[in-house]
Amino acid sequence: MKTLSSHAIGLVGFDGDDTLWRSEDYYRAAEQQFEQILGHYLDLGDAGTLGHLLAVERRNLAVFGYGVKGMTLSMIEAAIELTDARISARHLQQVLEIGRVTLQHPVELIAGVREAVAEIARDFGVVLITKGDLFHQEQKIALSGLQDLFPRIEVVSEKDAATYARVLAEFDLPAERFVMVGNSLRSDVEPVIALGGWGIHTPYEVTWAHEAEHDVAAGEPRLREVPTAAGWPHAVRELDALARSAHGA
Amino acid sequence: MKTLSSHAIGLVGFDGDDTLWRSEDYYRAAEQQFEQILGHYLDLGDAGTLGHLLAVERRNLAVFGYGVKGMTLSMIEAAIELTDARISARHLQQVLEIGRVTLQHPVELIAGVREAVAEIARDFGVVLITKGDLFHQEQKIALSGLQDLFPRIEVVSEKDAATYARVLAEFDLPAERFVMVGNSLRSDVEPVIALGGWGIHTPYEVTWAHEAEHDVAAGEPRLREVPTAAGWPHAVRELDALARSAHGA
Repeated sequence: MKTLSSHAIGLVGFDGDDTLWRSEDYYRAAEQQFEQILGHYLDLGDAGTLGHLLAVERRNLAVFGYGVKGMTLSMIEAAIELTDARISARHLQQVLEIGRVTLQHPVELIAGVREAVAEIARDFGVVLITKGDLFHQEQKIALSGLQDLFPRIEVVSEKDAATYARVLAEFDLPAERFVMVGNSLRSDVEPVIALGGWGIHTPYEVTWAHEAEHDVAAGEPRLREVPTAAGWPHAVRELDALARSAHGA
Repeated sequence: MKTLSSHAIGLVGFDGDDTLWRSEDYYRAAEQQFEQILGHYLDLGDAGTLGHLLAVERRNLAVFGYGVKGMTLSMIEAAIELTDARISARHLQQVLEIGRVTLQHPVELIAGVREAVAEIARDFGVVLITKGDLFHQEQKIALSGLQDLFPRIEVVSEKDAATYARVLAEFDLPAERFVMVGNSLRSDVEPVIALGGWGIHTPYEVTWAHEAEHDVAAGEPRLREVPTAAGWPHAVRELDALARSAHGA
């Protein structure tokens, strides 16, 4: 841990899904297959079938949490509801298989990620903070080949201010010395800024509707918008300089 | 953390499910309901239906991990296989509901647990180390009312020697100074003893077939068999004395 350096920033957190490796693509592919199976019974088109699926996923979030297993259960539930229970067991078996395939998808790093994290880790403490199913996330971390870069990994069930506060308490670090890098303004940036920390936002080409909702102000001064991972090291140094001057160090 | 005391034992770990609170009963109730639904199609009796379910759960463990969501997906899969896809969507909806109800079961502390943990926590560091679905385990911890007793909580995806070694490394503690208290010889005792640590085994009235398999020797000297939580404080003090004499302190 390099938290006691001359830097104002002591720790840089990285999100996993769609920040370090592709994830949302696999969910989108799963949804397309779901729609295809439902097409045997319905003629709703995108909005109807997937709209109902999103509604079911959202109402189940408080019981299932995030992750592929919850998505699969919601898909089965939505399929039965949408077809008024006309769907066959064989087709529901296919829906279940969508889940199994999604859980076993390959882990593809996003371009430039390894180099950027390695460069930042030379000067700052780094931690991987990823949301979702513990078992699946651990498998993805192992498959990502990034484990050697991250001395600490935190899999959390929700990325809200309370969760970040707990993680920072474990590191004994005030939020003013913490930068979070991620693709979601809602999950990676907003709660960290609310605590007094800093954010680097690198959007992914696809965003889950649920993650698209946020209250981060345009022009937020504690946030850097960075289009690709290659820009992370520079943005961290920039925020570090800002944090130093903010604290008169 | 009271790891730097005069005690030889620096940290006592507690398992959650069926050690601090009831869990297996809810799984057993779920299986009975599953069997009842399948009874509309089959006449296999306990062994056949639940035997196939266990086989499906085991082959899915490497993809789903432990927990109710994985169990529910396995139940749906087993139901389709056992009925050769004759099962109706309405009945599969009922199987899904078994999962939802099991995820929301009340958290009932086992008698004497709160007092025993509180007594041990006066002299030793304590940590809750629980296996399974992160989201569901966090909900159960919150509902248990034991959160105030545990400064640190570790939800892990598998309880093997590697996992315990990682947790102990985070506490910077050698296994010789660690006692694990739990109901499963396979998950709570065997890996800790293998690392050189100590175990307290308090069996629960019900054991999942998967957890019943273990390689702990009868008469293992680093293990105490304790019938109820009331005996934990005494057993910890006993092991502490043993650990002290083992290290010539």
